[in-house]
Amino acid sequence: MIQPNVPEAGVPRVVIVGGGFGGINLAKKLKNAPVQIVMLDRNNYHLFQPLLYQVSTAGLEADSIAFPLRGIFKSQKNFIFRMAEVTGLRAAENILETGIGDLHYDYLVFATGSTTNFFGNKLIEEHAIGMKSLIEAVQIRNYVIKQFEESLLLKDEAEIKPKLNFVMVGGGPTGVEMAGAFAELRKYIMPKDYPELSVSLMNVYLIESSPRLLAGMSEESSEKALEALTALGVKVMVKTVVKEYDGKTLTLSTGEKIDSQSLFWSAGVKGVPVNGIAPEIIAPNGRVQVNGLNQIVGHTNVYAIGDIALMTDEIHPKGYPMVAQVAIQQGANVAANLKKILKKDPALVPFKYKDLGSMATIGRNKAVAEFAGMKLYGYFAWMVWMAVHLLSLLGFRNKLVVFINWFYRYFTFERGTRIIIKRGAANIVKLRQTVNF
Amino acid sequence: MIQPNVPEAGVPRVVIVGGGFGGINLAKKLKNAPVQIVMLDRNNYHLFQPLLYQVSTAGLEADSIAFPLRGIFKSQKNFIFRMAEVTGLRAAENILETGIGDLHYDYLVFATGSTTNFFGNKLIEEHAIGMKSLIEAVQIRNYVIKQFEESLLLKDEAEIKPKLNFVMVGGGPTGVEMAGAFAELRKYIMPKDYPELSVSLMNVYLIESSPRLLAGMSEESSEKALEALTALGVKVMVKTVVKEYDGKTLTLSTGEKIDSQSLFWSAGVKGVPVNGIAPEIIAPNGRVQVNGLNQIVGHTNVYAIGDIALMTDEIHPKGYPMVAQVAIQQGANVAANLKKILKKDPALVPFKYKDLGSMATIGRNKAVAEFAGMKLYGYFAWMVWMAVHLLSLLGFRNKLVVFINWFYRYFTFERGTRIIIKRGAANIVKLRQTVNF
Repeated sequence: MIQPNVPEAGVPRVVIVGGGFGGINLAKKLKNAPVQIVMLDRNNYHLFQPLLYQVSTAGLEADSIAFPLRGIFKSQKNFIFRMAEVTGLRAAENILETGIGDLHYDYLVFATGSTTNFFGNKLIEEHAIGMKSLIEAVQIRNYVIKQFEESLLLKDEAEIKPKLNFVMVGGGPTGVEMAGAFAELRKYIMPKDYPELSVSLMNVYLIESSPRLLAGMSEESSEKALEALTALGVKVMVKTVVKEYDGKTLTLSTGEKIDSQSLFWSAGVKGVPVNGIAPEIIAPNGRVQVNGLNQIVGHTNVYAIGDIALMTDEIHPKGYPMVAQVAIQQGANVAANLKKILKKDPALVPFKYKDLGSMATIGRNKAVAEFAGMKLYGYFAWMVWMAVHLLSLLGFRNKLVVFINWFYRYFTFERGTRIIIKRGAANIVKLRQTVNF
Repeated sequence: MIQPNVPEAGVPRVVIVGGGFGGINLAKKLKNAPVQIVMLDRNNYHLFQPLLYQVSTAGLEADSIAFPLRGIFKSQKNFIFRMAEVTGLRAAENILETGIGDLHYDYLVFATGSTTNFFGNKLIEEHAIGMKSLIEAVQIRNYVIKQFEESLLLKDEAEIKPKLNFVMVGGGPTGVEMAGAFAELRKYIMPKDYPELSVSLMNVYLIESSPRLLAGMSEESSEKALEALTALGVKVMVKTVVKEYDGKTLTLSTGEKIDSQSLFWSAGVKGVPVNGIAPEIIAPNGRVQVNGLNQIVGHTNVYAIGDIALMTDEIHPKGYPMVAQVAIQQGANVAANLKKILKKDPALVPFKYKDLGSMATIGRNKAVAEFAGMKLYGYFAWMVWMAVHLLSLLGFRNKLVVFINWFYRYFTFERGTRIIIKRGAANIVKLRQTVNF
């Protein structure tokens, strides 16, 4: 009764592992190619990671930044999707090992992205919260609201402060945007939702090991971001490293200690290559060496694109930045070359990265953006940031829902989704004493 | 540093347990009363339960039918909210026992609603899924999509059918609306998302013990609902009771058996009264006897409203229906009487229920509605159903987001939120065999 999309005899199978920016663009560009595309992902949705921090800070619904993969490809006849975890590679046999069974491929593309990198610090890894998945974002939202609800039950300022000290580690776009969003929660939401708590009880820290924020952008943009965050009340610390964290107290490289129950970590990402890839071509950060055609070194029909792929050139001796643009462009490049290979056209085109610019938002009317040789700041950069993100979101429904949330927030200063969806949500601090208020 | 909203000396405290329809309306109507209102709820949001089934069936975001309680009352100065579970009552001392400590009250109102009633069948309770909470709705959505994803990995029709047999038990509005929504998933979504699965593999059952669906409405409406569901392909069984269910097979009172891994239960609700209320005034379904002023029998300053309250009159010897309208009206009545009590006005007004009608939607362009002596069916009833539900939703943002989802769905036949948000989502059937497709 099952009617599988069995390809005609001789149609080669392209297996794409991962439905992120790279994998999706690759599959789309192969729409009319004479191949069977099999995409595997552990989730059944594409996640728009750049807006994850807004889910964490109660600005957007989780569902509005996720788009079902089956929906994206519903009219693409040569496309098959399966939810699966990939566990190993037997390249000599052209077999990918997965949680749902072994899968034969003719061409294989790893587009598996990256995960949070704690740089081997197990203690921090145990107590910090990453910012890469939808589950983490929903958990952060639940946790943060719970910290406020619990604070109301405490009398001693020394007990409340560690609950309302929120520490972001990592001064890249994610850390900067998250710190800005927390500062806005403090400024606009806290006084309305928790009038019983003095705003001075909440502190937002942003800790960066290098000398400046947004290291991928110009010094001028770094300076503007620092100014804007400081004006919003964020305590920014550069040239500072978190040495230890036990879930209660951070110890910094400066010797300073911060009491905090919330450490949000965006200080680095790493690739997680599958078993079966030669260890000698895996970099310390988990990226896998590829040649200029995105072929994994030592293979001809196994590719890697995006964050997991380590491709170097003269300007990027440590590899291209781990951002969406690289993944999207590499997906397109691999698609173009696969089509040539299928046509036995030997004129394959090496990948060439076109930097389209970068941007980060700090808060209401405040952003920094650099593209096409221009630097934009403030209100106009913020409008550009919103437009680019809205247009990049998959699906008309998601665009509209995000737009409405932003529109609503702009005029009301409200955040609509500050609810805790969690079993046993009320199991907060057990005081077993008389409640006084 | 905490700045509690301490009432002036002598200001009486009204404690409201539960932020549902009844509790919210009561608190709102007391806005200008000389009292301190303390609302307790185990969640920090008001849940619009009538649209829960649309979250379950991937039609709406969870967040769009939940509204933060702090947001609703942000400009009400005499209102305090705490997230807490209520555990007991010591009425002689005017003390409510809660998970966050003991709380003194001058007036206490239980507006705790109801929970799923399995009528003592422990086996069914263990394996069936209720339809009362936001967590349950999100779990149903995750579970249903997972059933489809897993079905793709199976070859044997006999293994697939139990995964795609979805059984709703209870022919009230919730069961009817849920069955209709499942039938529409089958009709509009399944062929697009799962072209590899024949639609004939999916079956939707609706099982009702009484002789007709929507027993609270006219026979004509029951008939129309039955016709519409049958036309959508739902297998409706009336005068049928589920005797046993072990998670795999249902045994019906007719002797028939259905293999199904999904039993959704809306066959009844019950109150869950707190410890400390005299057992002799608690009905078998957990409702607590109140007099015509909603005072719990034997108390003068302890009230119950909505589903948890059992108030009878000549037309309703078994109590008023457990629906939002009763809760809302009782909330208003208690508020009015409390104001009189505070003014020492002895002319308290007994509750009088005004039935505003009822309605249920079956699917696209199909609904039944009865109000003001009118009976409406089909397209017009459906428009009325949508308008009433949209207008009843709290918050401008929620109204807009729900409206957009409906609008989008109407024109595209799509459901936007068919994603699985769950840790380890890919841990589906482990086959450890070669995947063939």
